[in-house]
Amino acid sequence: MKAKVHITLKTGVLDPQGKAIAHALGSLGFGGVDEVRQGKYIELDLAETDPAKAKAAVDDMCKKLLANTVIENYTVEVVG
Amino acid sequence: MKAKVHITLKTGVLDPQGKAIAHALGSLGFGGVDEVRQGKYIELDLAETDPAKAKAAVDDMCKKLLANTVIENYTVEVVG
Amino acid sequence: MKAKVHITLKTGVLDPQGKAIAHALGSLGFGGVDEVRQGKYIELDLAETDPAKAKAAVDDMCKKLLANTVIENYTVEVVG
Amino acid sequence: MKAKVHITLKTGVLDPQGKAIAHALGSLGFGGVDEVRQGKYIELDLAETDPAKAKAAVDDMCKKLLANTVIENYTVEVVG
Repeated sequence: MKAKVHITLKTGVLDPQGKAIAHALGSLGFGGVDEVRQGKYIELDLAETDPAKAKAAVDDMCKKLLANTVIENYTVEVVG
Repeated sequence: MKAKVHITLKTGVLDPQGKAIAHALGSLGFGGVDEVRQGKYIELDLAETDPAKAKAAVDDMCKKLLANTVIENYTVEVVG
Repeated sequence: MKAKVHITLKTGVLDPQGKAIAHALGSLGFGGVDEVRQGKYIELDLAETDPAKAKAAVDDMCKKLLANTVIENYTVEVVG
Repeated sequence: MKAKVHITLKTGVLDPQGKAIAHALGSLGFGGVDEVRQGKYIELDLAETDPAKAKAAVDDMCKKLLANTVIENYTVEVVG
């Protein structure tokens, strides 16, 4: 199965990269961009074929390695 | 509206960050992880209320700023 | 002049990317790697020719845009 | 010993992140920024006490894991 993980900064945590993008878009003439937040997107190919087990394993991976849960949120989606 | 942008390395482009994650998961005891690819995930809050126009604008932002289209693919999804 | 900026996570702030690299190195057979921390490295080409003014400007850029000073430290070096 | 690794995109490889920063600095009123390139900066704490061996090991780590040598350059500096 494939797992799709989104890791985003928690609300209230400053995001310099997102701020840079927002300003850059403004200076390139793109108006009406109120806020930009940059996160990470990770795709994993797993040998596991049981969706519930795959989801639980990736959840565990996020807590133990992929995300800094003090400042980041994560979501896990298991497909196909 | 909100736009969600996924930027991923094209197939065939080496991904050291993904490789590091895959190896790290193995050494942490997570078996059966065949491949890991790390990309970027960007959320934009837009003043635009027309979905088609919002989509076209963000598409343009990807080509002009957000993605390196030589080595990266991108997808744009407009919500809400 | 050229400015070289190093942005690193403050001591105590978890670094999942660094942790992933450390584990991956272990599983690739590289022993004796005690810790890995990943930061950003930014090079800027500046029109400014006065080193003190260039340094002050880049310092300001770090505070206003480049670094998240709540969780990151930065250093600025001006050369050439 | 400590090793400091700089990983930068090769000349000619587009750098959307650097471009975003350059534009953002302009829109924040910072003039005279001709170019910005964003790279990675990795610090490793090594058990190895021989500088030449430490350097050779980290060089090997860059080739095997840390850098995408098709599009990135790296430098290794060993200290302390």
